[in-house]
Amino acid sequence: MTPSEIRKLCRYGEFQSPTPGLAPQYIQTNLVILPKSVAFDFLLFCHRNPKPCPVIDVTEVGDPEPRLAAPGADLRTDLPRYRLFQHGELIEEVSDIKDLWRDDFVGFLIGCSFSFEAALVDAGISVRHIYEGKNVPMYKTNIACQSAGIFSSSLVVSMRPLSPADAIRAVQITSRFPKAHGAPIHWGDAKEIGIDNINAPDFGDAVTIHPGEIPVFWACGVTPQVALFQAKPEIAITHAPGHMFITDLKDESFC
Amino acid sequence: MTPSEIRKLCRYGEFQSPTPGLAPQYIQTNLVILPKSVAFDFLLFCHRNPKPCPVIDVTEVGDPEPRLAAPGADLRTDLPRYRLFQHGELIEEVSDIKDLWRDDFVGFLIGCSFSFEAALVDAGISVRHIYEGKNVPMYKTNIACQSAGIFSSSLVVSMRPLSPADAIRAVQITSRFPKAHGAPIHWGDAKEIGIDNINAPDFGDAVTIHPGEIPVFWACGVTPQVALFQAKPEIAITHAPGHMFITDLKDESFC
Repeated sequence: MTPSEIRKLCRYGEFQSPTPGLAPQYIQTNLVILPKSVAFDFLLFCHRNPKPCPVIDVTEVGDPEPRLAAPGADLRTDLPRYRLFQHGELIEEVSDIKDLWRDDFVGFLIGCSFSFEAALVDAGISVRHIYEGKNVPMYKTNIACQSAGIFSSSLVVSMRPLSPADAIRAVQITSRFPKAHGAPIHWGDAKEIGIDNINAPDFGDAVTIHPGEIPVFWACGVTPQVALFQAKPEIAITHAPGHMFITDLKDESFC
Repeated sequence: MTPSEIRKLCRYGEFQSPTPGLAPQYIQTNLVILPKSVAFDFLLFCHRNPKPCPVIDVTEVGDPEPRLAAPGADLRTDLPRYRLFQHGELIEEVSDIKDLWRDDFVGFLIGCSFSFEAALVDAGISVRHIYEGKNVPMYKTNIACQSAGIFSSSLVVSMRPLSPADAIRAVQITSRFPKAHGAPIHWGDAKEIGIDNINAPDFGDAVTIHPGEIPVFWACGVTPQVALFQAKPEIAITHAPGHMFITDLKDESFC
């Protein structure tokens, strides 16, 4: 199925499942919708922290169409599931936001790691959590993001264990995907970035680290979510975890 | 002199001249100051058009300190000369804007081509307008930028004539400077991008193009200025042409 076919199924309520593996080669994104009053702060937060928050597209105020990433799409209906937050608290999970949309809303599409994981696998590098059928392990770190207006957060990272040679190759490959978190931010000693127990991730699942492998850490798209929870804007709408927006852009678009 | 020493001279009114060649290896930037009411639109315009408008730093609302690009600097005093625009019209050129500053102002620092020109010269590639002691030739094109809110513009480009081999090398080198306009946007036939007479630039000076050389075109920082003039915001303050802000960031910071 093409991205637009999947979005159409979402639009008519016929698809409400997670999106990993769908429409391979097309960029999938996180969604954050905020009122205009805090949109400048959030765009600035993303600009200042491009590794955790790579901006793929931003809609015009009040317009639910992401004109650059998916012309003709509708952010009110074209994701499988949404989450509504008020003052930082999760209120409900819904399958469309037609009734919630306001003419001061701005939609932000933020890149995710699916693009570079596909490129790693294509290069013959095994990605442990995919191999083990798990969610990627994610950790809060002691690295502060650059704050912007009401938004601040410590950096959240994802981790993939690799042999030293594969880790070097992974730096080369993921550097080519700046809009999918880009090159790693750290490798080796997890304690250096404030992670006490690598087998107890803050989000996702622990994965096996074989002898001789080093943990490699990438900036993670959960970071802007943490910034959202801390800023507690009056209203915010996001995708439900794993239920991403599928764009018409190819993974290679930003190489 | 270091960037902070030059900024200090500006601050005390002791330096009001153009900045090319000063503090080599440090990033110099264009300045745009706008009220918060249109800052989201302008940041989004820059985000959507990163080649003409590479954002180096953006200040917090009301704060004249560019915390990331030059901690301790003051955008109200630390440039040699400023231009004040009201509703798109040039009102005056001044040496500081202390009396004009408002607590709803946001400052945008936008990369310029000095960084990549230095890298070209370092690589042994002669840059014609520097060799001929002229201003770089710049042209309006028929390429539309992505608009954002009140801001729209056609792309303005700068041109440097190069041999085919040097042009290829220049693609490699300037690709490494995404915050200084990055790789060229066109080379060869100027008419294809709407330039009728390459010897009659819209801004700057014409330069010699030798037989066998091809014109190579880069996105130009005059583009956001054109967008400003067209949008006619109530108030805008920019650097005076050639009188740039000198940051503490090295040219290689964003490689």
